[in-house]
Amino acid sequence: MAIVLGENQYGKAENRLVRVERDGDEHWLVDLNVSTALAGDLADTHLTGANDKVLATDTQKNTVLAFARDGIGQIEAYGLRLAKHFVGQLPSIHRAQVEIEQYPWTRLGPHSFSRSGEGTRLAKVTYDGEATVEGGIKDLTVLNTTDSEFWGYPRDEYTTLPETKDRILATAVDARWLFSSTGVDWGKAYDTARASLLEAFTNTYSYSLQQTLYAMGTRVLETVPEIAEIRLSLPNKHHYLTDLSPFGLDNPGVVFHVGDRPYGLIEATVRREP
Amino acid sequence: MAIVLGENQYGKAENRLVRVERDGDEHWLVDLNVSTALAGDLADTHLTGANDKVLATDTQKNTVLAFARDGIGQIEAYGLRLAKHFVGQLPSIHRAQVEIEQYPWTRLGPHSFSRSGEGTRLAKVTYDGEATVEGGIKDLTVLNTTDSEFWGYPRDEYTTLPETKDRILATAVDARWLFSSTGVDWGKAYDTARASLLEAFTNTYSYSLQQTLYAMGTRVLETVPEIAEIRLSLPNKHHYLTDLSPFGLDNPGVVFHVGDRPYGLIEATVRREP
Amino acid sequence: MAIVLGENQYGKAENRLVRVERDGDEHWLVDLNVSTALAGDLADTHLTGANDKVLATDTQKNTVLAFARDGIGQIEAYGLRLAKHFVGQLPSIHRAQVEIEQYPWTRLGPHSFSRSGEGTRLAKVTYDGEATVEGGIKDLTVLNTTDSEFWGYPRDEYTTLPETKDRILATAVDARWLFSSTGVDWGKAYDTARASLLEAFTNTYSYSLQQTLYAMGTRVLETVPEIAEIRLSLPNKHHYLTDLSPFGLDNPGVVFHVGDRPYGLIEATVRREP
Amino acid sequence: MAIVLGENQYGKAENRLVRVERDGDEHWLVDLNVSTALAGDLADTHLTGANDKVLATDTQKNTVLAFARDGIGQIEAYGLRLAKHFVGQLPSIHRAQVEIEQYPWTRLGPHSFSRSGEGTRLAKVTYDGEATVEGGIKDLTVLNTTDSEFWGYPRDEYTTLPETKDRILATAVDARWLFSSTGVDWGKAYDTARASLLEAFTNTYSYSLQQTLYAMGTRVLETVPEIAEIRLSLPNKHHYLTDLSPFGLDNPGVVFHVGDRPYGLIEATVRREP
Repeated sequence: MAIVLGENQYGKAENRLVRVERDGDEHWLVDLNVSTALAGDLADTHLTGANDKVLATDTQKNTVLAFARDGIGQIEAYGLRLAKHFVGQLPSIHRAQVEIEQYPWTRLGPHSFSRSGEGTRLAKVTYDGEATVEGGIKDLTVLNTTDSEFWGYPRDEYTTLPETKDRILATAVDARWLFSSTGVDWGKAYDTARASLLEAFTNTYSYSLQQTLYAMGTRVLETVPEIAEIRLSLPNKHHYLTDLSPFGLDNPGVVFHVGDRPYGLIEATVRREP
Repeated sequence: MAIVLGENQYGKAENRLVRVERDGDEHWLVDLNVSTALAGDLADTHLTGANDKVLATDTQKNTVLAFARDGIGQIEAYGLRLAKHFVGQLPSIHRAQVEIEQYPWTRLGPHSFSRSGEGTRLAKVTYDGEATVEGGIKDLTVLNTTDSEFWGYPRDEYTTLPETKDRILATAVDARWLFSSTGVDWGKAYDTARASLLEAFTNTYSYSLQQTLYAMGTRVLETVPEIAEIRLSLPNKHHYLTDLSPFGLDNPGVVFHVGDRPYGLIEATVRREP
Repeated sequence: MAIVLGENQYGKAENRLVRVERDGDEHWLVDLNVSTALAGDLADTHLTGANDKVLATDTQKNTVLAFARDGIGQIEAYGLRLAKHFVGQLPSIHRAQVEIEQYPWTRLGPHSFSRSGEGTRLAKVTYDGEATVEGGIKDLTVLNTTDSEFWGYPRDEYTTLPETKDRILATAVDARWLFSSTGVDWGKAYDTARASLLEAFTNTYSYSLQQTLYAMGTRVLETVPEIAEIRLSLPNKHHYLTDLSPFGLDNPGVVFHVGDRPYGLIEATVRREP
Repeated sequence: MAIVLGENQYGKAENRLVRVERDGDEHWLVDLNVSTALAGDLADTHLTGANDKVLATDTQKNTVLAFARDGIGQIEAYGLRLAKHFVGQLPSIHRAQVEIEQYPWTRLGPHSFSRSGEGTRLAKVTYDGEATVEGGIKDLTVLNTTDSEFWGYPRDEYTTLPETKDRILATAVDARWLFSSTGVDWGKAYDTARASLLEAFTNTYSYSLQQTLYAMGTRVLETVPEIAEIRLSLPNKHHYLTDLSPFGLDNPGVVFHVGDRPYGLIEATVRREP
């Protein structure tokens, strides 16, 4: 059997850049982490080291920075501009993928800001003649102190977990959604999706994290018509009710110790079906 | 020369606990990372392994959890209760140190919360018959897009840095302050100190990060009379103005690439002097 | 359009466990991080919160630990035992995936060890009636001080990188390989694959990291007949030759400063083709 | 009460650099992380922003790189050269501190290397007219599968820990030692200290981690006469014997689950006394 080159791509990962937007005395900033990856007719560099079809990763970095000169706008649109450029730049480049993280900041003054922690906005654009755009959010940590139960699961010989009618439910939301077109008000879509995730997490009385996940995905699809599909990956960040009885104390749902590992991990896609 | 045991302490580090506070249907949560360290007459365990003077670190952990049963309150007060308890518990324990990190959360609903990122509150309490209380904050990342210059420094044979009259100034604030007494409204002191740090960062026209640091420390001392001294450690998170001229573009202070390492590190204490 | 549940799985991630193997006075240890994920007829828990088809993630954790009682052996075999067990345990569970990381240790004495850093061994087993076994390695950082060139790439309007005939080439190997059967001497396969990766990295005169990657993948396929395909993900950890000329010094390939981000990222699959 | 500037220093942290040493076809590499910090007559920059006494942190970085041109040698000596240079460079600089981390690599070929994990070498040099040199090691993770007991500790109302006559003892060694002079064979001192730490950890039958710590510190002082004092900080990385009895299994010291947090933390200094 012959040995052959399969799927491959290459690029420059984690270009950290800040774009300052100035509107008179009032400034704003767009704080990004941009990763590019190109694919195409790239067998030569793998097989012989001939690089005449390779758009250098350093050039990709320069392009990311130069394209910021005239403003970023919404990250989905910025990713589209970059991806289309890369595919048009060399005949050997057939597909470009641009992944972007945008960090949130809060205004302190006309040109002063503090970094906030409530979720990193995501975009992933793929262009190969046609464009695919995904949005998303990660590192959005949320917690309900009650309205979460877990019981009714089968008990096998390795089951020791007691059932509970009241527990803390906590997770760090990682959600990626697929847009059905590129004619979207990206900023509004993101704001609505983010708000829907929080709203569904807050208002779902939960019998499992799976149920909460499904409610969150459904709410996003209900409120953002341009989203075709959403994938959620939710760690179950366990908060264990501490047994205080050895110390003569009860614990009516007030003291919890927090574990780092292991954690549950619940993953699912929710989508529209014709 | 004889070999002898010098300074020593031992404890349980990073006890992660959440205390849920319930007020009818409305809940609140206190999310902590607590580390304890005890010192005293502990030569035996080092020299012979005899543990009869050792309050086990597992016991310290249990105590941290049990003491949360009746509520945390302000972390400085919780640390004081714990530290005094440990010193009173065994004759061999002469000094206890309790360090606490408190993570910030934002309310989403009556019992729903999202983790925010704007600074981790700190307390460090030491008790050895007398109490010493420190407060603080870390991981408070702030950025000014302008009103920062850096010039006039001497040029030696290794100096290549061009002077600048306009740059981004960004840092992650790490501040620790020493209280002059234990009769303090801890919550108000924290809120005021945090606000003063942000206010001074925002409103100082800066010729060096040292100058901004000193302004921040001074503002805290001016607004919180119970703070005797504040130590600030400020990384200078460099944002480099990208040279876009190879691409035929100017860069009027709009595109910056961000470096992780190396970074400047500015550290100083500001204190009251009688 | 209806909203429906798509692909989904759930499990317990990052179960950290150590198995001590005792052979008289001489011990050995197997240090693992095990993650499980189950899929099947799980719509109920998502749609209604009914959990009667859910093997609790806590039960999965218990199973991982209990199955270690009689020895781990090779991690691929341990993963197979676990995955087959989960699928047989409940009619609703149709597919199980077990991912394992094994950390390397070096012997210091009959029952003493130090953690070494030269690569974490990986296994990923999927069972849904048929078994798929992958092996791998990550965090294997390697560096060549010479025998690496990069030139001949096209120059567009964003290209500024100078060509080089001598550079440092450094990467952290992440390799995953697919076995074509389950009748494999897993330990020998791992050792051979790891040695082949290092040998090919060491002995390839490189004109691009892509070329080095392809040589590494090819070498593994040549030396381990049971491996059908290997996927490599290689960050190009840039070491920049420092310009010392402002200080009146030359730099004949001796001083390099190291960047964290951005970094190149080269990804490809090498496979056998009938 | 007046507000005044207290202790302060500033510098460039985490300069990552690699020095390639070439001896014909055989190369070697020195992989460093260097942080500098200067102190002196620096009130002006804090109070008014006047920078004429400030050796820019960018200049410090350049100096670190330029001083690597003619070879690093032992990191303690490199740190001394840098620290003395900085203090001599400007009248305002009265004290310089240089901290260095050196990462370990293993040879794969004449100019090929893999990063090993067995401890990061440390040096910290302070010069203010007189030189103080510290060495050290961190991230050296070690584990004994037996020969560790813990019992005989007092039981108060918060004590639940059962006594044990056999447990796993694991830690990540962080040791810093103070040299009594600068006329030292630095490389030999480091190798001997590192070997002594491992030897004492391996061969001490332990009744507490404190006892193991003291044995480790003592062994270093016994074998390296130029070391006056050693400070050890040892996390007790807990490995919990898993209760398998719910599954009808015994556990004769073979299956352990590993906790990340909390962990014990044992810190002590061992020194020579005249």
